[in-house]
Amino acid sequence: MSKMSNNDQVKIFLEEKELPKQWYNIQADMPNLPKPPLNPATKQPVGPEDLSAIFPMDLIMQEVTTERWVDIPEEVQELYRLWRPSPVYRAKRLEKFLDTPAKIYYKYEGVSPSGSHKLNTSIPQAYYNKKAGIKRLSTETGAGQWGTALSQACSFFGLECTVYMVNISFKQKPYRRSFIELFGANVIASPSDHTEAGRNILAKDSDALGSLGIAISEAVEDAVSREDTNYALGSVLNHVILHQTVIGTEAKAQLAKVDQYPDIVIGCCGGGSNFAGLSFPFIKDNLTENKKARVIAVEPSACPTLTKGKFAYDFGDTAKLTPMTMMYTLGHDFVPAGIHAGGLRYHGDSALVSQLYHDGLIEAIAYGQNDTFASAIKFAKAEGIVPAPEASHAVHGAIVEALKCKESGEAKTILFGLSGHGHFDLTAYDAYLGGQLENIEYSDDAAQASLACLPKFK
Amino acid sequence: MSKMSNNDQVKIFLEEKELPKQWYNIQADMPNLPKPPLNPATKQPVGPEDLSAIFPMDLIMQEVTTERWVDIPEEVQELYRLWRPSPVYRAKRLEKFLDTPAKIYYKYEGVSPSGSHKLNTSIPQAYYNKKAGIKRLSTETGAGQWGTALSQACSFFGLECTVYMVNISFKQKPYRRSFIELFGANVIASPSDHTEAGRNILAKDSDALGSLGIAISEAVEDAVSREDTNYALGSVLNHVILHQTVIGTEAKAQLAKVDQYPDIVIGCCGGGSNFAGLSFPFIKDNLTENKKARVIAVEPSACPTLTKGKFAYDFGDTAKLTPMTMMYTLGHDFVPAGIHAGGLRYHGDSALVSQLYHDGLIEAIAYGQNDTFASAIKFAKAEGIVPAPEASHAVHGAIVEALKCKESGEAKTILFGLSGHGHFDLTAYDAYLGGQLENIEYSDDAAQASLACLPKFK
Repeated sequence: MSKMSNNDQVKIFLEEKELPKQWYNIQADMPNLPKPPLNPATKQPVGPEDLSAIFPMDLIMQEVTTERWVDIPEEVQELYRLWRPSPVYRAKRLEKFLDTPAKIYYKYEGVSPSGSHKLNTSIPQAYYNKKAGIKRLSTETGAGQWGTALSQACSFFGLECTVYMVNISFKQKPYRRSFIELFGANVIASPSDHTEAGRNILAKDSDALGSLGIAISEAVEDAVSREDTNYALGSVLNHVILHQTVIGTEAKAQLAKVDQYPDIVIGCCGGGSNFAGLSFPFIKDNLTENKKARVIAVEPSACPTLTKGKFAYDFGDTAKLTPMTMMYTLGHDFVPAGIHAGGLRYHGDSALVSQLYHDGLIEAIAYGQNDTFASAIKFAKAEGIVPAPEASHAVHGAIVEALKCKESGEAKTILFGLSGHGHFDLTAYDAYLGGQLENIEYSDDAAQASLACLPKFK
Repeated sequence: MSKMSNNDQVKIFLEEKELPKQWYNIQADMPNLPKPPLNPATKQPVGPEDLSAIFPMDLIMQEVTTERWVDIPEEVQELYRLWRPSPVYRAKRLEKFLDTPAKIYYKYEGVSPSGSHKLNTSIPQAYYNKKAGIKRLSTETGAGQWGTALSQACSFFGLECTVYMVNISFKQKPYRRSFIELFGANVIASPSDHTEAGRNILAKDSDALGSLGIAISEAVEDAVSREDTNYALGSVLNHVILHQTVIGTEAKAQLAKVDQYPDIVIGCCGGGSNFAGLSFPFIKDNLTENKKARVIAVEPSACPTLTKGKFAYDFGDTAKLTPMTMMYTLGHDFVPAGIHAGGLRYHGDSALVSQLYHDGLIEAIAYGQNDTFASAIKFAKAEGIVPAPEASHAVHGAIVEALKCKESGEAKTILFGLSGHGHFDLTAYDAYLGGQLENIEYSDDAAQASLACLPKFK
């Protein structure tokens, strides 16, 4: 092996003073804004007052603003600096293992104390709620990443926090529950007897395993019913995506330090906040600076919202409590198969991501979970880091593109988002290594059935 | 809150080109070298040939060299660069929470892919074994940190790896086992029927829970009985400590970047490699540059080897297979209480750390586990990172010293080692938060009994 040169550098850091001071809002640059969200009862566009029962006005304003740049409050920056700017790594050992001429870079959000990108939005959400005089936040969590992140953020700002955790996760992921409780949050297995929504389910089945849809209903009901409490959501909404753009803004500055610009940007996509956080600052350059980066959203074949869903108005939750938004959806009644990438098991996509996909400004592709686990293990053996099952979708997407470069001989620059580590997902790897998993496909029959629930308009 | 100034910086990074090129060997500077290790059969000093059945000659030479600096091979540096130089953080939020004038810095080794400092030595150990033509390494693991690190290192160098995992940990920590297996190692619950030592135990008790002592015996027997296999140890030995000195060498350079030098250096201490890795480069300055940093080893009150043990020749393992070394020991038959800081449950201490303590060059103090968990949670709520139970001992030591500064009004600079994260130790936090743990003390009666096993000399 040769002596180290600059080209051997594998980690690209920014200094703390280079932390972005503003979030990027793609609503300023996208050719077509999403159609407005509709009140589920009246089917009329929702106004700020419709949302004020569960969100503080600062976040509602961020939801609708078309300003290009939104200032990050100093208090939020101070907490971001606990781990941000997060590193970009050059995956040199993976490149060598794949024998590809491609340059593979990844932005690693697993260095966050909560282990994923979710803390980027839980901190400003807690901050704005605190500022608005709110004492307590309620939320739901499935796999647990979001519950952990909100619990930490509430702890930082001295807010109480209640997390409705899908019952089956509550039982299967005791470490996640412990992590959330360690930061002082109250974790309640959902369905619970704390809410009307929960009690209705329990009356039918006292051992109900629960679902994200039910947990959302409980958390929203909790927030609506108490004056001191607001609700917090970890993905999908415009303000959540806004907060996540620190990822891509940093990554662009980091690649610039090594004179690189990505030919391809890849992120895993569930509700869309991780994908959008990484990619929107690059889509901005495509829209405004004549750049031509391909931007690819990778989703699970078991829940292929962009690639197999319908672009239509739908509800964000099963219980139809949320506004209807225009999105790619498999139908709010669709229950995705129990794949291990729990964070990608969402029936729809964010309105912003959906609109960009509809307008042909991003690509999407779906992969089976066995393929993503196989790639995740290749990545781990090369780079050391064990990816979360969600992030493994982006890993797989990057490996597919890098192998295409091997075929074509092109030395493309690939940037992908490694949104979190897999330290709490090792039973999933166990199941994969034990041959217990399969690539689950979304069938056309399933599509017919699940899309039948879409709301009708006259 | 004020605008950011340089003084607000919380993370201090080195560039990759600042990665140390040499390990520091304290044997060049300490006033008294440890007495030589003795062959357990002959009670005569062991020579290199005694060790060559299980270690490659490069590591045996590192065990005995008195050269001050030992070159880090380029191949090892390349792998170190996956995560090194590791960050030093200023614990500003913790300082504020404690309302102390002290400046608290911590060197965080949890950014390593294996989650702790152990990878610093598993990589060179795998490298030198590979270089010597060895195909396979055997080792033991208790809590799992070492097994994970060796498994990763073997994966990097294409070596096979067999990990004898203490049976009770094998059952209680399935995530750790999965992590080790993900990197291709073979994990065997110990006692096992793979070795004579294991079969002897199983004949008496087919459900034996196992112990580190038994697992070491099995791993050593495995290595001795196969020509292609060597043994690897994760702490205690001189060459292991040598490899860990990258921690302290980096930390010194990082503090220099912010014009700081520690008044107090604190590390948790089990076998001693983490403590030594952080502190030896500072002890060097005390010995050769007239610096006066206090250096404090923190150990658990349930296993207080330095503070309550005897300075005597003793075996490194229960089965008396290893050489006898001069160390602070509670007796090789001592079975520490089942505290959650599994990495600190060792009956003895490294010869180097023991000699320095005997010569009054370091301090030691023991704390109960409830006190350390309470401090760990304070730390986590301030800084976000959940410490491993072992590292929580250093956290507690640092908080105690910071509160003394509050009392005295002194603005001392405290540096402690955060040797790993606690992502695989959340059941321990659960038990603490559930009120199920207690501060376990080592009684004088226990001392009398456990020290009775020390080898006699004529």
